[in-house]
Amino acid sequence: MKLRLDLTYDGAAFCGFQVQPNGVSVQEELCRALSILCGEGTTVSGCSRTDAGVHAKHFVCHVVPARSTAPDARFCKGLNALLPDAISVFRVSEASEDFHARYSATQKTYRYYILNRKTASPLAAGRLWHVPQTLDIEKMQAAATALVGTHDFRTFQAAGSKLSDTTRTVSACRVFLEEDILCLEISADGFLYRMVRNVAGTLVDIGRGTLTEPMTDILTAKDRARAGICAPPEGLYLWRVDYEERSAT
Amino acid sequence: MKLRLDLTYDGAAFCGFQVQPNGVSVQEELCRALSILCGEGTTVSGCSRTDAGVHAKHFVCHVVPARSTAPDARFCKGLNALLPDAISVFRVSEASEDFHARYSATQKTYRYYILNRKTASPLAAGRLWHVPQTLDIEKMQAAATALVGTHDFRTFQAAGSKLSDTTRTVSACRVFLEEDILCLEISADGFLYRMVRNVAGTLVDIGRGTLTEPMTDILTAKDRARAGICAPPEGLYLWRVDYEERSAT
Repeated sequence: MKLRLDLTYDGAAFCGFQVQPNGVSVQEELCRALSILCGEGTTVSGCSRTDAGVHAKHFVCHVVPARSTAPDARFCKGLNALLPDAISVFRVSEASEDFHARYSATQKTYRYYILNRKTASPLAAGRLWHVPQTLDIEKMQAAATALVGTHDFRTFQAAGSKLSDTTRTVSACRVFLEEDILCLEISADGFLYRMVRNVAGTLVDIGRGTLTEPMTDILTAKDRARAGICAPPEGLYLWRVDYEERSAT
Repeated sequence: MKLRLDLTYDGAAFCGFQVQPNGVSVQEELCRALSILCGEGTTVSGCSRTDAGVHAKHFVCHVVPARSTAPDARFCKGLNALLPDAISVFRVSEASEDFHARYSATQKTYRYYILNRKTASPLAAGRLWHVPQTLDIEKMQAAATALVGTHDFRTFQAAGSKLSDTTRTVSACRVFLEEDILCLEISADGFLYRMVRNVAGTLVDIGRGTLTEPMTDILTAKDRARAGICAPPEGLYLWRVDYEERSAT
């Protein structure tokens, strides 16, 4: 049998989703708790490998339990009791045998949050990137729109990545502002390593005027050096994962 | 001379704005830091007495410095360096002699944030009130609208308050939803003790169906016992304070 877990986590406490030799990962905490409930040898696979410090409003895992388990409310409550406060499982359901948290996903949506005011805010600490410079939102919106479509996104892949197929389809990319909080929302069928943080950093560089090249030129250059900085992890949230059978919102 | 400070604070660390015999207050921290910069005997007065655990996105103080002080960028930087991380002053300016942070305010706006989903979220901990029950948003919106206008708000004053003039003018009161986060925004010329938290709790009781009396009846009863519960402090934010001479946003 296979289970599906839908969860939220605060990434500040973890070295990322994936098990790492140094630091505590979300996967490690889930494995530990699930081994108690479902037996040793239970495996957990995630929909994405988020970096250290990156948050997830909605993350999906599939679990192969070592012994058969009823995914009921009691199980969910017991699991949360065994997990640290920074991880909260909000749904446990039985999944079909061919369900794979990563490969069955048809679309992922990330949000990147920026606090745009001169002084840092204690209410944003660890949750938003603080950018003190004035940003030209219209320029950022136009540049974001230029990323929509099927393109080779090599420009936005972290230097040193060896992935050969770097073509992805971005179905939506928008920048919106509420008071002094700016949000970048980007949906795609998949993302390259550090792609969202590199896009966010490039948009901010465009917004503050330190990068004047048109976004289409930056994109078609297929050269990491032409893009802007990599935005820090604390502003990034995996926001939603969509699957064919049902939408995970 | 008089200074005006515009600041943000995370209320979780404090016993409220006002100096209290037990616990550290925001006022105490400001006094301590300003005494170093402007001399012993410097006084600080706030626009509102927020309760323990209540946050302020935008709080205003007036300061009477013991010695003349240039409210420049260096002063602001120095002040922030002397304050704990949970308080951030984002503007220092010279105020007119008759400016009073509390009595010159023409309007205040509070926001109350609620996480409305079955399971708690680590991303909302200490920042939103977690309400797991299904809420009827339309009913809550209609009830919120019924509070707009000049009324005697005695129903929503904390039991035991001795204030005699309990008439206030609410200029706007709305409830809006973004995904699983519900926000109550309320603006008035003044608020009674615990008024926003009592309004928020009453609206939630109406939304989950435990309170069925129409809001106009609850309001005109002038009886605290007819209203709903008092919502916890962690979801409440002083959002904006308006003054006649200029808008503090």
